[in-house]
This record gives sequence, structure tokens and C-alpha cells, in this order.
Amino acid sequence: MATAVTLAEVIAALGGDLHGEANTRIERIGTLLGADALTLCFLANPRYQAQLTSTAAACVIVAPALADAAAARGAAIVTPDPYLYFARLTQWWARRVRSRAAPRIHPSAVIDASARLDADVDVGALAVIEADVRVGAGAIIGAHCVIERGAVIGAGTRLAAHVTLGFDCSLGERCIVHAGVVIGADGFGFAPHAGRWEKIEQLGAVRIGNDVEIGANTCIDRGALDDTVLADGVKLDNLIQIAHNVRIGEHSAIAGCTAIAGSTTIGAHCTIAGAANIVGHLTIADHVHVSAATLISRSIHKPGLYSGVFPFDDNASWEKNAATLRNLYSLRQRVLALEKKNSS
Amino acid sequence: MATAVTLAEVIAALGGDLHGEANTRIERIGTLLGADALTLCFLANPRYQAQLTSTAAACVIVAPALADAAAARGAAIVTPDPYLYFARLTQWWARRVRSRAAPRIHPSAVIDASARLDADVDVGALAVIEADVRVGAGAIIGAHCVIERGAVIGAGTRLAAHVTLGFDCSLGERCIVHAGVVIGADGFGFAPHAGRWEKIEQLGAVRIGNDVEIGANTCIDRGALDDTVLADGVKLDNLIQIAHNVRIGEHSAIAGCTAIAGSTTIGAHCTIAGAANIVGHLTIADHVHVSAATLISRSIHKPGLYSGVFPFDDNASWEKNAATLRNLYSLRQRVLALEKKNSS
Amino acid sequence: MATAVTLAEVIAALGGDLHGEANTRIERIGTLLGADALTLCFLANPRYQAQLTSTAAACVIVAPALADAAAARGAAIVTPDPYLYFARLTQWWARRVRSRAAPRIHPSAVIDASARLDADVDVGALAVIEADVRVGAGAIIGAHCVIERGAVIGAGTRLAAHVTLGFDCSLGERCIVHAGVVIGADGFGFAPHAGRWEKIEQLGAVRIGNDVEIGANTCIDRGALDDTVLADGVKLDNLIQIAHNVRIGEHSAIAGCTAIAGSTTIGAHCTIAGAANIVGHLTIADHVHVSAATLISRSIHKPGLYSGVFPFDDNASWEKNAATLRNLYSLRQRVLALEKKNSS
Repeated sequence: MATAVTLAEVIAALGGDLHGEANTRIERIGTLLGADALTLCFLANPRYQAQLTSTAAACVIVAPALADAAAARGAAIVTPDPYLYFARLTQWWARRVRSRAAPRIHPSAVIDASARLDADVDVGALAVIEADVRVGAGAIIGAHCVIERGAVIGAGTRLAAHVTLGFDCSLGERCIVHAGVVIGADGFGFAPHAGRWEKIEQLGAVRIGNDVEIGANTCIDRGALDDTVLADGVKLDNLIQIAHNVRIGEHSAIAGCTAIAGSTTIGAHCTIAGAANIVGHLTIADHVHVSAATLISRSIHKPGLYSGVFPFDDNASWEKNAATLRNLYSLRQRVLALEKKNSS
Repeated sequence: MATAVTLAEVIAALGGDLHGEANTRIERIGTLLGADALTLCFLANPRYQAQLTSTAAACVIVAPALADAAAARGAAIVTPDPYLYFARLTQWWARRVRSRAAPRIHPSAVIDASARLDADVDVGALAVIEADVRVGAGAIIGAHCVIERGAVIGAGTRLAAHVTLGFDCSLGERCIVHAGVVIGADGFGFAPHAGRWEKIEQLGAVRIGNDVEIGANTCIDRGALDDTVLADGVKLDNLIQIAHNVRIGEHSAIAGCTAIAGSTTIGAHCTIAGAANIVGHLTIADHVHVSAATLISRSIHKPGLYSGVFPFDDNASWEKNAATLRNLYSLRQRVLALEKKNSS
Repeated sequence: MATAVTLAEVIAALGGDLHGEANTRIERIGTLLGADALTLCFLANPRYQAQLTSTAAACVIVAPALADAAAARGAAIVTPDPYLYFARLTQWWARRVRSRAAPRIHPSAVIDASARLDADVDVGALAVIEADVRVGAGAIIGAHCVIERGAVIGAGTRLAAHVTLGFDCSLGERCIVHAGVVIGADGFGFAPHAGRWEKIEQLGAVRIGNDVEIGANTCIDRGALDDTVLADGVKLDNLIQIAHNVRIGEHSAIAGCTAIAGSTTIGAHCTIAGAANIVGHLTIADHVHVSAATLISRSIHKPGLYSGVFPFDDNASWEKNAATLRNLYSLRQRVLALEKKNSS
């Protein structure tokens, strides 16, 4: 899919100081280890500096501190933040190589007459857009999406295939929603009554800000009374569960398979690693970071990194330690008894 | 979406003792904290009693014990179980404000001539209904659902968009199935052979009782030989995995991201919190409650609450404790040695 | 759905030594416990040998060691590996009872003129096949699948309903992909910049080998630069997250709700139990087995079984032990102090 460029074109588009031949030909972006003489690479983590000497890359994007080392082996682009430069390079590259057809409404789409689509909206094959939906300019609705009545999609937002956007829910501008995402299913709410569960209809919706990305098959439930809210810049990975009335602050990022239970509020600029679990009705401060597979069972009021995982081991060692753990409290009592005896 | 009602209308529909003006106008149901003078609220948890004095709500639903306190600040509806009253209020409200069009078969749906749809069935845009399917009266099949051959859907059951109901599987009456649910995919069964896996075709189906609710993107696999069975009143949240041949008893409720492995039987009236995991071939008694993120690795024969999670901490504290945990067994041996020494 | 066969027909199709009447009639395959006089069963696990004497089965498939015991109670098929025999029996049975119509392209499918479909491809209702897709002979594309531009599907591969196969991704031959699977969504990659996240476009794809099975609603992300790769014979259960640039070796099997984070390489012939979690950038050797709900946080270079789960208990016991665990390091220090005192 690649079309060749020169380093001069890269620099013209993205800036940076070029050390080396401006007409060096680049056919792909790649890793240092897998690079060939047509590959443009980046080195952001000093841990991988050793790869600099061995790579066959045409050019390496580096920070000023590594400019000399990089230039010694071939072409280099020097920039204060190579990882950021790399991110922008991938965006520029994707726009080049992923040709996009002119926006069109696929004739097989089922669009209610009352839906309002702004200019240059692209609607994929067999998408369903119900009554009173509004779609902003340049938005892309993927094949097989279902946009329920009254939903709102901001300008420039892209929905992949098979997305469900529930009635009255809204997505901001420039969001990316991957395949299979469900926004606006009912929150899990029931009142117990005589051994059965009486359904609490979920009367709220989901409101999602601008520049939010939502991974494949992730679910965001509508609120019970108020709305479930994701602020601008939130990034969610795949297979995440966001329960009703959760609120997530600006630019927080959550990795795959994490579950956030109902009515919990997560601050801004948090990162939550994969398969973590945050129970309901908690408040998590800004700039909190949660380790993978950790259960957060109390509110966190102080920024920092929080963890809680049983360290894995070979099974035999684990079994011995785990068995002892089941008697840990009594072990502590035994130590206490020894201490008393020894101090007397 | 709200249309105003008076408290008199609420009482007429749902009962309760009204303290205050019967013609008080209500435009929304809301929380005590967010209420304004047009909001109807409830107070079920005594923990939130302090909010009673500060709320601006038009009326608060309370238990008899709080009748005086509630009436002192404004209108009140007194009822033995405010949370149950609230649940029924949301149902009544949803019927009022969510206008529903008359049932119809969307012309874009693909329905096999041999499918039998009873009266007043609603089939959404682009739904697929295969051969020999039966759908009970008043059922709603959402847009883009796929109902495979021979499947059965009971009267009054509602399927949201993008639901897959596998061949020969059945759903009872009045069920609610949210978007993206997959019922009847193959169970995960293979016989090892010469370093490879030989597929065990899954010859059973899935049978689901009445009044079952299934959350978005949840998966319920078909049985290997016998069926996978969910009894009446079971409630499943989003992104849950129910493996082949699992059986879940009446009115058990399971929160999001939980996984139940193959051939495990769960009793009636159990509750399983989010992200829990129950391994295969176990038997869990009635009235068992499992805490969030807990792995259940043995059968449970006694009702009660069961937990097993590493308590989270700031990362530095966790690291020190976790490192020690990996030597817990030897620590116990050291205590034993001290005890021997001290007793000699 | 069953059609009767005789044991003679079973033996003719699948081999094995028959003890008993060749014209014994079989109407179903079932478990020993649920069997009646028309049921064919298997006994692979000696733990269930007691069921041999009580079962009403028409015939039991057993290993040579149990031939006499089985024959003493009725017909038996003796074979070196009864579980493997059973697996093949289910395959033969499924081919018999699940009548399949002749392959056809459903007229409602939306297929780009540039897509190339080989002989005997079956395309379900409302499936979407975009430009430049190639589909091998005998493949089955389920209803409502979306096959994006440039994707490749090998001969004999079957996709259930609602599968998304992303652009430029490839599936090998004889694969089975269950409903709701998303292959080729963007990996979760962002560069932090000034408190925001800059998207790293994911320029790789997903390459999947032959004989791979993928469970319902599982997600496999496309690579950032290189591809995400599943080797031949890999088996994935439901609701699994495979992040970008993960590589999984031949014939490894992963149970439901497991998450594999980015750039991790998993060897061949591994098994990973349900709800496990493997962090990113690790290398896991061949023949490694991971217990349920275990977090793998470091590379594993030695075959074996690895575990790391807090053993569950009744809540009161767990609470006491968990509280002590939060002071485990200081408990160790206290033991150390006692040891010093006692040795002096």
C-alpha cells in the first residue's frame, strides 16, 4: 500500500532537523529491528538505543541527545519528542496511503426522512439512521451501524462497522468509535422485591465529548436518571464496560477489558491499565494511575500509582504461598504471641 | 422528552400516601442532589438522609420512618419500599415518555417464508429471520438482529439492535436482550491430539427462561451435548461470558465482565459482582454472593458472601507486601521455628 | 434434529472395535448421566468410571483398559483415545444432522464488483463485501458480516453473523469465526503531548493462519507498524482481547475473557485459562500454561504451569487475611527482629 516519499517531503510536512540526504527514499515506517534501507524509524525509549547501531533503517527519528549517535550511522531527523513526531508521522502516512473515496450515502442505507445530515457525511452500506438523528459535517457512519432516534453525532466523527448508538445519546466532534461498540444500552439497575428483580428503567442517556476514541466491542450504558458522561479526549480500549452514571474526566485513558461500575467518577488525566476493575459509587482523583488487573474498592483522593495483584509464580510455589495466605491472620497472631513472650 | 404530570397522577398510577399538594407539577425524575422544583425524587438508603433537608425536589418518595422529616420540607409520597416504588415509577415514566410507534415489519427485513410471527410483532430495519423461527406476540426484534433457523422468541420479548440468536436456541417471554448479544455461539471444546486441537462440535443449544435480561455484548454459548440453561428471572449485565452447559438458577444476577466457565451450575437467588470468574464444573449453592473480581475455584455449598481479592494499595506499599507474599510459606516456616525454640 | 443410525454406521465412519450388536440403534449422543437406551456416550476420564455401571446408554466409547467393564453392561466401542473419538463423532454427527443448503450468494448482500469470490462461496443475507476482497472456495460469510476492502478469507473458512474483518486483514483456511468478532480495529496507541493523547495511526494489519477458531465478540487489533499474527491452529474463546502486535504461536488455546496486551509474544502449544491477563512486551515460551485469572507481569522462559490468584474464602476470613496482607512486609520485619533476638 506504500507509496514512496523522500525525507524532504517528511520534513516539509512534519518539521524536524534533517541530518543526511534530503532525497533519501522512504517506502515504509517500521521498527528498528525490522527495518530495511527504505524504512523510516523512531527511537523514543533510551532502553532501545543499542538497536541504533544495528538497524538497517534509512533514517531514524531521535531526540537531540542522540543526534550525533544517530547521524553517525545514517540519516536522522532530530526533534524534541520523537514519539510525538512518530505519532504525527503515522497520521500523515495514513492520510497518504489510505485513499478515501468521496463521501456518499450508500444506497442500501436506511435513513429516516427526519434525520439531518450535514455536508459531506459518509454513510456505509446497510447503516440504519432513525428519526431525528443529527450528524455533523464530514462524519463517517460505517457499514451496518444503527443510530437510534434522536442521537447526535458531531462533525468529523468516524464510526466503524456495527456500532450501536442508542436513542438520545450524543457523540462529540472528531471521535473515533470502533466496530461493535454499544453506546446507550440500559444500565444494570433492579430493585429486589420478593425474591425477584424489578427493572429500573434507565431514563438518562450517554454524553460523549470531543476527540474521544472508543475501542471495539466496548459498552457504555445510559444513565439511570442523569447521564453517563465521557469528557473530551477520553480514550477507551476494547471490551471495556462503563456502567450507568459513570463520569470520566478529560484525557483519561483506559486499557482493554477494564470494568467501571455504576456511578463512579474518574478524574482527568488518569490512566487505568488493562483488566482493572473499579467498583461503584467511588471518586477517583485526577492523575491517578491504576495497575493492570487491580481492583479498586475505595475512593482515591491522591494522585499516584495504585496496585493490587497477587504476584504470579510457578504453580507449586503459588500453591504453598496461597495456602499460607488463607491463614495469614492467625500467623500474625502467632507472631504477636512470640513478641509478647520475647519481651517479657 | 418529559411531559409534565401531577403528583395526583403518580399516586393514581402507583399508589402510596401523598403528603402535600396533589396538583404539584412534576417534569422529571431525578436525584436528590440534582433536583429542582419540578423533580420527583426517592430516598431509599438512610445514608443519604442528610440530602433530604437540602434538596430542592418537588416531592420525595420515602419510607414511613421518614414521613415526618420528608413532609416537613415539602411534598412526600410515603410507601413501605421507596426503592421498589421508584423502580415502578421509572417503568411508568418510560411508558409515558418513550412513545412507541405501532408494531410493524420493516420492509428491509429479510424474513424466511417459513418463519411464524404472532400478532403485533415488530421487526426492525434489516433484521434477518431465518427458516422455522417462531416469534411470540408483541415481541420486538431490533434493527440488524440475526435470528437463526429454528430459534424461538417468547411473547413480549425485546431484542435491541445487532443481537445474534443462534439456531435452535430459545428465549422465553418478556426478556430484554441488549445490543450485540450473542446467544448460541459454539462452546469452547476441543480434544487434544498430537499437539493439535480436534474440534468438538457443540450439539446442544441455549434455553433461556422468562423475564431474563441480558446486557450488551454478553455471550452465552450453546451446550456441547445438553443445553446451556438460564432459568426465569436471571439478570446478566454487559460483556459477560457464559460458557457451554452452564446452568443459572432463578433470579440470580451477575454484574459485568464476569466469566462463568463450562458446565458450572449456579443456584437461584445468587448475586455475582463484576469481573468475577467462576471456573468450570463447579456447583454453587442458592443464595451465594460473590464479591467483585473474585475467582471461585471450588464448589460452594453454603449460602453466604465469598471474596478473594488482593487489597490494593499505593504501588510502593503493594510492591513490598507482594514481594513478601512470594515468600510467605517460608515466613510461616520461620515462625514455626521460632515457636519451637520458644517453647523448648 | 436427530436421525437414527446404527452402531455399524458409526464404526464404518469412525473406526473402533465394536463389542455388542452392530445394528443397535442410536438417536443421540449424550452424557452418561442423562443417557437413555438410544444414546451413544463416551467415558474418557477415569474419575467418572462409576457412571459406567449406572448409565442407561445404548453404547459407551471407552479405552482398552475399560473394555471389559463396558462390555459387561452393554455395547461398547473400544478405541485408544475415547475423547478424540468423541470429538470426531460430534463432527460426523453435526455433518449429518445440520443439513446445509447449497451455497448461494444471498441477493440482499452488498458485494463490490472488484471482490473475487471462488467457487461455492456462501454469502449470508445483508453481508457487505468491499472492494478487492478475496474469498477462497467453499468459505461461508454469515449474515451481516462486514468484510472490508482488501481483506482475504481462506478456503473453507466460516464466519458466523455480525463479524467485522478489517481492511487488509487476512484469515487462513478452515478457520471458524463466531458472531460479533472484530478483527482489525485500531490498536490502542497514543503519544502523550501536553496533557492530551496524540493518536498513533495503526499501519499494520492482522494475519491469521489456518484452522484458527475465534470465539464470539473477541477482538484482535491491527498492528501499529508490523502485523498482529495468530499462527495455525490457535483457538480463542469468547470476549478475548488481543492487542496490537501480539503474536500467538501454533496450537495455543486461550479461554474466555483473557486479555493479551500489546507486543507480547506467546509461544506454541500454550494454554491460558479464563480471565487471565498478560501485560505488554513480554515473551512467553512454548508449552506454558497459565491458570485462570492470573496476571502475568514478567516474561516466562520455562514451560510449566503458572498461577497467581488470591484464594477465595468466606468474606469474614478473607477480610481478616486481606487486612493482614496489607502489613505483610512489616510482619516479616517483626519475624526478622524475633529471629535476631532468639539467635543472640
